[in-house]
Order: sequence, then structure tokens, then C-alpha cells
Amino acid sequence: MDFAFDDRTQDLIAQMRAFMDEVVHPAEALAHEQIEANYANDSWDIPAVIEDLKVEAKKRGLWNMFLPGEGGAGLSNLQYAPLAEIQGRSIQLAPPATNCAAPDTGNMEVLNEFGTDEQKKQWLEPLLAGEIRSAFAMTEPDVASSDATNIETSIVRDGDEYVINGRKWWITGAMNPNAKVFIVMGKTDPTAARHRQQSQILVPRDTPGLEIVRGMHVFGYHDRDHGGHAELRFTDVRVPVTNLIAGEGDGFAIAQARLGPGRIHHCMRSIGIAERAIELMCQRAQDRTAFGKPLADQGVVRDWIAESRVRIEQLRLLVLKTAWLMDTVGNKGAHTEIQAIKIATPQTVQWILDKAIQVHGGGGLSQDFPLAEMYAGIRTLRFADGPDEVHKNSLAKAELKRQGLR
Amino acid sequence: MDFAFDDRTQDLIAQMRAFMDEVVHPAEALAHEQIEANYANDSWDIPAVIEDLKVEAKKRGLWNMFLPGEGGAGLSNLQYAPLAEIQGRSIQLAPPATNCAAPDTGNMEVLNEFGTDEQKKQWLEPLLAGEIRSAFAMTEPDVASSDATNIETSIVRDGDEYVINGRKWWITGAMNPNAKVFIVMGKTDPTAARHRQQSQILVPRDTPGLEIVRGMHVFGYHDRDHGGHAELRFTDVRVPVTNLIAGEGDGFAIAQARLGPGRIHHCMRSIGIAERAIELMCQRAQDRTAFGKPLADQGVVRDWIAESRVRIEQLRLLVLKTAWLMDTVGNKGAHTEIQAIKIATPQTVQWILDKAIQVHGGGGLSQDFPLAEMYAGIRTLRFADGPDEVHKNSLAKAELKRQGLR
Amino acid sequence: MDFAFDDRTQDLIAQMRAFMDEVVHPAEALAHEQIEANYANDSWDIPAVIEDLKVEAKKRGLWNMFLPGEGGAGLSNLQYAPLAEIQGRSIQLAPPATNCAAPDTGNMEVLNEFGTDEQKKQWLEPLLAGEIRSAFAMTEPDVASSDATNIETSIVRDGDEYVINGRKWWITGAMNPNAKVFIVMGKTDPTAARHRQQSQILVPRDTPGLEIVRGMHVFGYHDRDHGGHAELRFTDVRVPVTNLIAGEGDGFAIAQARLGPGRIHHCMRSIGIAERAIELMCQRAQDRTAFGKPLADQGVVRDWIAESRVRIEQLRLLVLKTAWLMDTVGNKGAHTEIQAIKIATPQTVQWILDKAIQVHGGGGLSQDFPLAEMYAGIRTLRFADGPDEVHKNSLAKAELKRQGLR
Amino acid sequence: MDFAFDDRTQDLIAQMRAFMDEVVHPAEALAHEQIEANYANDSWDIPAVIEDLKVEAKKRGLWNMFLPGEGGAGLSNLQYAPLAEIQGRSIQLAPPATNCAAPDTGNMEVLNEFGTDEQKKQWLEPLLAGEIRSAFAMTEPDVASSDATNIETSIVRDGDEYVINGRKWWITGAMNPNAKVFIVMGKTDPTAARHRQQSQILVPRDTPGLEIVRGMHVFGYHDRDHGGHAELRFTDVRVPVTNLIAGEGDGFAIAQARLGPGRIHHCMRSIGIAERAIELMCQRAQDRTAFGKPLADQGVVRDWIAESRVRIEQLRLLVLKTAWLMDTVGNKGAHTEIQAIKIATPQTVQWILDKAIQVHGGGGLSQDFPLAEMYAGIRTLRFADGPDEVHKNSLAKAELKRQGLR
Repeated sequence: MDFAFDDRTQDLIAQMRAFMDEVVHPAEALAHEQIEANYANDSWDIPAVIEDLKVEAKKRGLWNMFLPGEGGAGLSNLQYAPLAEIQGRSIQLAPPATNCAAPDTGNMEVLNEFGTDEQKKQWLEPLLAGEIRSAFAMTEPDVASSDATNIETSIVRDGDEYVINGRKWWITGAMNPNAKVFIVMGKTDPTAARHRQQSQILVPRDTPGLEIVRGMHVFGYHDRDHGGHAELRFTDVRVPVTNLIAGEGDGFAIAQARLGPGRIHHCMRSIGIAERAIELMCQRAQDRTAFGKPLADQGVVRDWIAESRVRIEQLRLLVLKTAWLMDTVGNKGAHTEIQAIKIATPQTVQWILDKAIQVHGGGGLSQDFPLAEMYAGIRTLRFADGPDEVHKNSLAKAELKRQGLR
Repeated sequence: MDFAFDDRTQDLIAQMRAFMDEVVHPAEALAHEQIEANYANDSWDIPAVIEDLKVEAKKRGLWNMFLPGEGGAGLSNLQYAPLAEIQGRSIQLAPPATNCAAPDTGNMEVLNEFGTDEQKKQWLEPLLAGEIRSAFAMTEPDVASSDATNIETSIVRDGDEYVINGRKWWITGAMNPNAKVFIVMGKTDPTAARHRQQSQILVPRDTPGLEIVRGMHVFGYHDRDHGGHAELRFTDVRVPVTNLIAGEGDGFAIAQARLGPGRIHHCMRSIGIAERAIELMCQRAQDRTAFGKPLADQGVVRDWIAESRVRIEQLRLLVLKTAWLMDTVGNKGAHTEIQAIKIATPQTVQWILDKAIQVHGGGGLSQDFPLAEMYAGIRTLRFADGPDEVHKNSLAKAELKRQGLR
Repeated sequence: MDFAFDDRTQDLIAQMRAFMDEVVHPAEALAHEQIEANYANDSWDIPAVIEDLKVEAKKRGLWNMFLPGEGGAGLSNLQYAPLAEIQGRSIQLAPPATNCAAPDTGNMEVLNEFGTDEQKKQWLEPLLAGEIRSAFAMTEPDVASSDATNIETSIVRDGDEYVINGRKWWITGAMNPNAKVFIVMGKTDPTAARHRQQSQILVPRDTPGLEIVRGMHVFGYHDRDHGGHAELRFTDVRVPVTNLIAGEGDGFAIAQARLGPGRIHHCMRSIGIAERAIELMCQRAQDRTAFGKPLADQGVVRDWIAESRVRIEQLRLLVLKTAWLMDTVGNKGAHTEIQAIKIATPQTVQWILDKAIQVHGGGGLSQDFPLAEMYAGIRTLRFADGPDEVHKNSLAKAELKRQGLR
Repeated sequence: MDFAFDDRTQDLIAQMRAFMDEVVHPAEALAHEQIEANYANDSWDIPAVIEDLKVEAKKRGLWNMFLPGEGGAGLSNLQYAPLAEIQGRSIQLAPPATNCAAPDTGNMEVLNEFGTDEQKKQWLEPLLAGEIRSAFAMTEPDVASSDATNIETSIVRDGDEYVINGRKWWITGAMNPNAKVFIVMGKTDPTAARHRQQSQILVPRDTPGLEIVRGMHVFGYHDRDHGGHAELRFTDVRVPVTNLIAGEGDGFAIAQARLGPGRIHHCMRSIGIAERAIELMCQRAQDRTAFGKPLADQGVVRDWIAESRVRIEQLRLLVLKTAWLMDTVGNKGAHTEIQAIKIATPQTVQWILDKAIQVHGGGGLSQDFPLAEMYAGIRTLRFADGPDEVHKNSLAKAELKRQGLR
């Protein structure tokens, strides 16, 4: 057992930190302005400054680090984890700047693993190059989509085409006009076995019948920094059969495959968010005086700072161990731990953000600090990929099994 | 001891409920549209439909119920409390519709109690008539304003005028162009005794030197339904000496006087918000099915519903008892209870809203349900009028005193 | 609505307080010694000093206040509630001193309402006179007894006798040799409708076949102050048919009837326990200095004191309102509120005790302060009469019904 | 970074598990009986069965594993940690069986590091051999002893002797007649610098003037399995000057040195306690049925099981990382992490025990399951070595320093 990162990781950590300090953090104010302007102009473009950051990241070799194997930077999950954490410290800029932003990362992984050569050429290459963005259309408004058998979108073969009908919402990134392709989950055979009913298919943004209805808000945010969360309507949308990813009935398995890496990236970035919140909390507590002494000298604030540190240290280690398990025994072997971090991360980070906000007073909820927007983002993780309650239920069942009781 | 409302109150409750069912709730969808349009057009006007509601409320005699004595409806705090709760069920519409919205209520109370005849004629009358709105400018960006001695805005006499300089923020309602007058808290004598340094003064919106800098956001909301929360800058703002409310040095006492009623109104409305959240939670839990049964039949959701009911019943009674104390022994005698409800209400209602949101999944955070916006509003109460921690500290000191230890 | 107690209640409160200050609290040290001696001598006698207290209580007319109507003091639930709270401040002495201790109170209520003249003469009279004690034998070791249909003890008629077989545990008070009679719940007809299977029957302590197996511990306590909690074995125990309370199949209904008053008494006494804990916490926090100032001046301790006060004020009001509902609309009409206080009370009081203990350091867990023993007692309430989770489930169902969803 | 234990550790884990399964767990019932008998006979002897276990442990080489270097088994903290966790699963038997029980472990460490040859020969050797036990007398009844400068016990040199006067309490193990020597903390020079006032000195049990006043209870437990927690009075107790450990004024430093290992052992054993509690909770939940299905199929119980697993996994990793830091950068370098686990462990394990108890109903608090006694033990850790609040305060200060704010 060894808690030190290997040399390559330590080297990358240093490079990533330098990139943050020299390039990303200095760009935050401008990005903030550009995002505000997008709100005012009802534009869904990604803030322009991100393109500059991408150029710089590529130049520094900090690109596609999320992707293992030859296609990407060749890092293990454990090596990538601390880099994702550092990205989380500037959550709106660093992930897209390094081409490590969800949901593109998951889509690239899927295409890399399951895509045909043609699909890779058409979609994976420009995604890896950071030229286009993408979205993943799974969640539906009318059903509890944590239960995949509830999915109602239909994908029906008609000659050389598939015809897609249905509604989706919370499709992250899809409001961005540069999100050129959507991976859509639907049912090709509602009569098949429970987990063989679903398929995934590529739908280019400009396909007739695909309507971008509106952007969903999160608290009052539109998330215009990353293409928001769209409601989509598919009405007789036709795509060639070659757009199917893997085979009919493989949709559920593909969805499962993307979950592990997706969750661990979210968790690592969330820890970066929490670390930034702790810094802001400490800074503010030190600067602000009430009743004769800095907030940082008042017992309750001290308690919050300490609890935050104690909780985040525990959480980070579990996320790192999960990454290590994924690397050593595979995503399936790490299933319980992946669920555990999916449960633990949002509740821990939300708690820390709530306290950081409280130390800031009114400012903490406002546009002057990133805390409220971070809170909104973290809050969504408590039901992204299914609500925590579903995962707890399943994790408890696994525990009962582990104890030989099931 | 008797837990039943008196006949007049029960009658008013029935009338208020009828008004809500017949007039207010049916107007919510339109108001929502008008508010969205205001965002799109960068307008800070109050949604137009509220004017219609006001006409109807006046006609029904449901007007100025917050104001005791001859000036208003003559209700006691205990009689008004359940009406305020009902208003809270449609928090954006019902309070302004009945001319019972903060911060005007507090401003009217102050003018009613401390205003000169001239001040009453000029400002109180149109406020009572619902013709204009107002704001109360106390919080400052650079200091912890829970400690009133920190206030930095200066009010300096110069002949027949006072000259005001300083910065304020979180001035609720001030973005609304119809907020025609601001009551401003500043220091007339920074060398006086701790609580005799402050004064309050009337500043008409169009006074030269008063700059409305921007609207503060709460999470991503601008709160365009009620004039938002403005940042203000006062640069050599001059008003006649007759604009002073009461005398120099009375500012702190006047601020204290408005706190009691202000807080209890907030608390009662918050309970109405919680009741609406519980209803939405139950409705959704009943309607949404996952893993073979309605959410409402799943243990964890049941636990949330039950806890919500148990907590809100306790909270309501404490708020009602506080109202009764204010009526029978005065605001000063009810000081500890007023602090207690100020502490208890936001934490309880925030908890309930969090669970109601969770039952709704992604929708709960979106514009499709009022829950996320309610959450944002309630979250601000944890530092409005000073953060909970300040009040807890003070309440604990009172407890030590009560036990004869101080 | 009126939050003041009526004159008679205020008068009784004053008398009860005087009795506590003059008689009960001064006896606590001696009682503590006698209880310790009972541990050392393996005796289950009630501390002798209680007999002296009973004489004095009777003399002062503070006797059987729990019992409404002619049989007792004729107080309403609302009138008795504050007296029970005061009793809770010396939980080991005051209830038995005033003949208001569980489970005798419930047994007396049952006999008063359902007993035959003969049963009243033989058992109710000496109980009302404080000459004997009693127990109520319902909980069983082998089943989840929150579900009454699980009960396995059998009561089979054989000529003029009933024959009882089964096991019971947690039979409070039964180790006390002066607990002369047990009311036993069992099944007379396991084939009857769900809630008509059960009957209740009187079993004198010395009946052959009734074995007092052992005392159950609560944490490390034996609860020798009140007869502990016995495990009982019934092997062909025979009693005359005249010992049946009401008719065959009435057992469930009788059990329900005793629950309302039983729970509210427990809750009121628990509030008294909490008040005493708050006092001890304040006292200790004031007296103990660390790092240069009293604990009472440290932020976290202030927070605990304030939260304790805020929580207990809310809880007390809900308990009082429940008492008022029982008085005005009956136990059935107050069903939801009775459940609510059953849920809310232990969690609130346990929280307060935990903090009071923490302020005391090691002493708080020891025999030098009553806090740890109070904690143990309160902890049992989270499953007495069925675990909180069962009650929450049921309360949530009631809420769904109230909203018209069931 | 690597989360797998090294081969030697894995081998020892297997041996320790075998010892538990084959020897320790089978002895639990008998030990329980012997402890009960000790209560009945007012004996403070350690349960006799432990001597048999010690013989077997020694034979298997599972002896003194806590002690690094030549004196002990030569394990690192990281290697010992999982063994301590396994010991925690039978908390009353396994630590003394393997001669790894507090406070002897700390005393042996101190003697090993700071003792003279003579002191080692007289006390360390029989301790290492498991022939005698010992105690560490630091906490005092009259002061908040988390602040070491508060200590009032005096150690005054008089010729070739030191004279000790003072009172101590919560001296764990000291009621055991076989605890032959106490290490006593007192002040040799109250006028010296803050952390140079204290010294530590060896006092044999039978020294005149040393009075064993009584055993302190924890909840109702006497902890007769391990010699309880004594109150001691030192009245002109005289020992030769050669009994001083290290020099005058070194007491604080020695106390600090023992804290690191002491805490991490406590934490690891506590995790073992939690694991056993989770097993008992699962087992009970599976076995017990209410309202038609096993508790293990009810949502709220599932939630508890899942939360328990998620929390304990995080906690364990932080404890292991702390052990690794102690091994690699020393106890001082691991100071913040040692504080963090001291804060996190009791609150996490207490939460799990509370839920495990709740699943057991009344039985969970009784002598029939080990849960309530575990709870009592864990509860003490929230103030052992100073209350959590002191450690949080200090950890927060360290965080502020780390951020460059102090």
C-alpha cells in the first residue's frame, strides 16, 4: 500500500497546476463576462475564450487525458484522477480547455470502444481534435429514467434507416450549436429481455425531425458555459442503419460501460470544486470581521473548516481507490465502489458549499462568487444517472450479498 | 390554552383561501410567462398581472392585513399569521396582490409609527394604496452588516440638507422602477454611543447622486417578480432635513422595531412555502413510478414526507406563539422567540424543499416547478437580518441569563 | 388561540414546582445511594425514599393527576401536560412519588375504563392508592412486535380458566417484587380478523407457571429504580376467566386506547428531561474554563445551547397541541399528532442530551451526572410502542390521504 | 499509489482472522459470563479466559504486533493497522489476547522510547510478556484536561524522592488489581514555559498514599473486562527520583509522542467495531420480518446499510493513509491527519452503531447483543484525549495556515 502518486502523475500534476495558474484562472473574469453576454444575447455559444485555452492546452500536451489507451493520453484512471480534480477548480473552463469535458468524454469513450471505423472517422476524430462537441440523449421527461426499462423513445428499423420518435430532456450540452452529434438511447425491441431492449444510435444535429425545444434551467442558471441542458423532441427522425452503435439490444450494456469513467470523472472534478470552496471559505473568513474578530477566529466557522477538510480527505481517498480498482480489476469489479462515490460525493461537496456560502453571506449566493453556481451543479449530481436513493438501495443489496445473506 | 383560531381569523382564512383558489393560483402561469419575458427584455417591471390581482384583493377587502391599528386592517399578529402563511403558497403573487409584500410592509410600519404627517402624506399614503413600492437600504458590501456598528454609509448634515455617501447591496425591490422611495440607514454620528450612531432617512429614487448599479443574483435568479436586489451607490446625495425619520441617532431603534413583524411575516410565509412543497412532493411521489411501485410507497420517500409534516407542525406552533407573545407582551418581550423562529424557519423549510426537489428529480431544479426558486429564496433567509450564527450566539446568551448564570 | 395555561393549571404548576424544590430534588442524592445499594445487593426493590415522597405528595394533593374523570384528579390532558413535564425533571423520583409512573398509569386507565367492578376492587383500588405496582406484558422476543399480528403468546380457554403460554420481554417494572399484577396481551383466536385475535388478561405475579427469567439491561443500566425490564416465561399459566379484560378479541382495541395517553405522558416527561439537560449544560459550560475562557463563551457550545432551546420550544408546543386535540376531538382525532410527537420527541431530546454530555466531558457519561442514564431512557423511546420508522411510514400514509391522494 | 497490502501484511491478516475464528470468537460467550460474574462479585479481575487466549496468541506469534522495532513485532503502522481493525471485531478479547490493548500499548511505547534500562527491566519486560498490566494517569476531575496547562497534580522533588499530590479520574485499566504500575502526569514546575511544566513518573500500584477511590461508569457499564476507569487520589505519594521518565519538563512531549500511535490504534479498532455492527445489522435485518417482508427489504434500512458501507470505506482509507504518513514522514508530519481521524472516527462509528441498534429494536440496547456496549465505548472517544471540538479548532487553524492565511 502506497499513497504517493507515481512520477509521471506527479509531473502531470505540476504541469496541470501551471496551466491553471498561468492560463485558466487568469481567463476566468473574461469568461464570466462572455457568459453574461450570452445570457443577454440569448446565445448558446461556448465562451470564445475557451478556444484560446484549447490552443494553449494542446500546445502543452494537456489534451484528452481522460482517454486511456492509444486514442488518448494513455493514462490510467488513477493517473488521470488528480488531473480531473485540478480541472474541477475552474469547472467552467478547465475541462473544455483540455478536451476533457462531459458528455463528450463519455461519447468519445463509447465511439472509441464500440464505434465502426466509419463512425470513428466521422465523429470521433473531430471530437478528439476538439473541433466539435456532442451530447448524450438518455433521460426522458415522462418516466423515472433511473429505471432503464422505462425508456419510451422508439428506434424502429425501416429498410436502410432507423426511425426515431420520442422526447428527451436534461440533454447536457445540446443547446450549443457546435454540438454536432447526439448519441440517442431508445428501444429497438420492447419485447426483448429487460436489458436487451435498448439500443444507441448516432443522430446528427441537423437531422430533420429533431427539434431542440428549450433549455432547462438549474436553479436560475441556464449553464450557457457548456451548452445547457436541452429538451429534445424526435418526430420521425431518420438516420441510416450504419448509425447504430454496436448491435440492436446493446444499448444498455453500452450505457453501463460509460457510467464508470463518467462517474469517477464527475467525482474527481467535484473534489476540485470542494477544494476551491474551502479556499474561498478560509479566505473570506480571514478577511471579514464581525463583533471584534475575524470570522476565522469564531468557533462555528472553525468547525465548518475542519469538518470540510476531514470530509474531503476521506472522500478523495475513496475516489482514488475506486480509480485504482477500475485499473486493476475493471469497472465491473469496481461496481460497488463506483456506486459508493456516486452517493458520497454530492452530499459531501454540497455540505461544504453550503457552509462556504454561509461564510460569504449574501455574496455567496450571488454572481460575485462562483459558489452558488457550483452548488447548483453539484445538486444535480444527486439525481444524475439515477437518484442517490436508487444507488443506495442497490449498494445495500450488494452488501447483503457480500455477507452471504442473499 | 386554546389552539383554535378566533372566528374573525377563521373567516379571513376562508376568504383568503377562496382568493387564492379563485384568483391567485389561476394567474400563476401567466405571471410566470411575464416574468420570463422580463428576463428576456431586461425589464424590472413587476409582472402586469399583479395589478389585476390587486384590484380584486382590494375589492374583497384582503388588503394591508399586515398593518395593525387604524392604518391597516386592524389585525393582531396572531390573526394575520395564518393569512401570511396562505400568501406564502404563491409567494411571488399573493403578497404583492394583497399589498402585504416585504420590504414595503416594514417601510409602511416605520412610516406609520415614526413618520411625520408630511412624510405620511407623501409616502405612506401611496404605499398603503398600492400605487408605489419602496425599498430599505441597510446592508453594505464591505462589512459584516449583522453588526450594525459596522455600517459605513455617512449621513452628514449640511444646512437644511443631509448629504449621503456610501454603498449598499441586496436592497430588495430597488430594481423595480416603481420603487419610488428608499429608506436609507447610515451614520449621522460615528462617535456616539454604539447604538446611537445610526439614523434612517427617506431618499426618493430620482435623487441625483443615487445610482442603481446592478441587480444581485440569487443562485441564477434575478427575482424580477419583485424588483430584485440592487446594488446602490450614494455619491453626495442630498435630501432635505425633513426627510429624516424620527431624530438623529434613532436609526438603530427604528431598525429594531421593524425586525419583529418583518421576521414573523417571513416565517409565516415560509411555512406556506413548505406546505406547498409538501403537497408537490406528495403529488409527485404518488404519480411517479420506479421499480414497480409509486415513489410514495417507497420507504425513504415516506420518511421524508413524515419528517416534513412533523417538522412543519412544530415550527408553525412556535411562530404562532411568537405572534401571540408580540400581541400580549410586545415585541421586546417576544425577543427570544423572534430569534428562535428566525433560526428555525429557514433550516426546516430548506430541508423540506431539498427533499421535495429530490422526489422531482431533474424537474425539481428546473423552471417547470417552483421548488428551486423557493429554495433560493429560503436560502437567503439564513443570512437576511444577520446570519443564523449571530442569532444563535445571542439566543444562547439570553438562555444563560435566563438561568441566572449571567 | 391562547398560549397561556388556565388558572387551575398555573396553580398546580406552582404547587408541583414547590413539591420538586422542597421535597423531590433534595431526595435525589439519597435515592441515588439506595439505587446503587440495590445493584450491589441484587435487589429490585424500589428505593425506600420514594415511599416518603408518596406520603408527602398525597398530603399535598399531588396524586393520580394523570387520571381524568372522577377516578383521578379530573384534569384534562392539557392541564396535566405541564405537570408531567415538571415530573420529568426528576425522572426517577417524581413520577412514582405522585403515582403517575408508567406502566401503572396505563394499567389504571385500562382498568378504570374496561375493568369489571371486581377487577377494579381487587387491582385498581390498591394501584390508585399506591400500595402496589403493576406491569404490562406485550412485547415478545421472537417477533417484530410493532406489528400486533405477530404476537405469539396464546390464551386458551379451558373450562372456567384461561391457559397462557408464551414468552415476553422488556416488561417494564416487572422485576419489582411489589408489581403484583401483570396485564398480559396474547391471542385467544389466531384465526379471527387481524385486529380481533388479541385479548388482554390479568395475571397475578404469584401465579404458578409464570417465571421471571431475568432483567434486561439498557446500555449497562438495570433500571432498578423502577423495577427494570423483565423477560417472562408463561408455561401453562392458569387464571380464572373473570380475569379477562373486556371480551375475547378486544385486546388490540384496549392496547390502542392506552397508547394515546401513554405516549403524551412520555413526551411531556421527556421535555422535562431535556429542560434539565439544558440547565446542566449551561451550568457546566459556565463553570468550566478551557483555553482561557468559559465553555459558555465558545461558539460551538453557544450553538448547541441555542439549538437546544429552539428545538425544545417547538416540540413542547406540538405536545401541548396534541393534548388539546385529545381533549377536544378525542384520541382518535389526535392520532396523527400523537404519532408526530412519538417521532419527534426522542430524536430531539436525544440530540440535546448528546450535546449536554459532550459539554460535560467524561463526567457526562458517568454516574456523577444523570445525563447518560437519561440518554439511555430516551434512546429506548425510539422503539418503544414500535420503532419510529413504523410510525413515520404510517404518518406519511395519513398525509397522502389528507391530500386526497389515497 | 497502490491500495493493496504487502505480502507480509496479507499473511498476517489471514493469521489474525484464523485466530479470531478459531480461538477468540468461540470464547466470547464464556468471557461474557465471566464478566457478568465479576459484576455480581464486585471483582475487577480480567476475565480468566483471556489468559488462555494469550497463551494461544503467543504460540501463533500474534503478540505485541503494535510495537515497531526490535522490541515488538517490527511492523510498520500501515502493516499493523488492518490487524488492529480485526482485533476491533472482538473488542473485549482480541486486544488483550494479543497484548495489544490500551493503555498498555502506549505505556510500553513510552518505556521503550524514553525508559532507562532499569525502568525497562522492571516494567517494560513484564508488560511485553503480558504478565502485568498498567495505566496512564493524566485526566483530572476538576479541570478541562484537554488543555494540558490546566493540570493540577504536583510532583515535587524532595531529596531522592518525588512527592505526588493530586486527583485523577477516568484512569482506564486501573481498577484491575494486576495493573501494577501507573504512569502519572503532573507538574514539576508550574512556573516554566507552557509545555515544560509537566513531567511523567512511574508509580507502583502499592505505593502508600495512592488511593483507588472508585470505578467510573460509562453509561451503566463498569468496563470490568479491562479494569474499568478509576478515580485516584495521590496524597503525599513518594517514589524514588529514578522513577521519573526522561527529564523534568519532558512530560508534555512524552504525552504527545504517545498520542499518534494511540489514536490510530483506537481508530482502526473502531473500524473493526463498525464492521461487526454492519454485519449484525444486516443479519438482523435479514432475519426479522415486519409488515410482510424482511427489514432488509425496507427502504430506510437499506439506506442505513448503504450509508454505513459508504462511510466506513472512506474512513478506513483515511486511517490507512495516516498510518502510511506516520511511517513515511513521522508522527509530526502526520499531525493533521491524526487529528482528522480522531475527529472522524467516533462520529462515523457512532452513527453506524445507532442504526444497527435501531434495527435490533430493544435487543440492540440490551446485554443480548454487543452493540450498546460498543456504542458506550465509542461515545467516550468523542472526548478521550480532548473533545472533538478542541481538535477541530486546531485542525481549522492548521488549514488556515496551510492556505497561507496565518
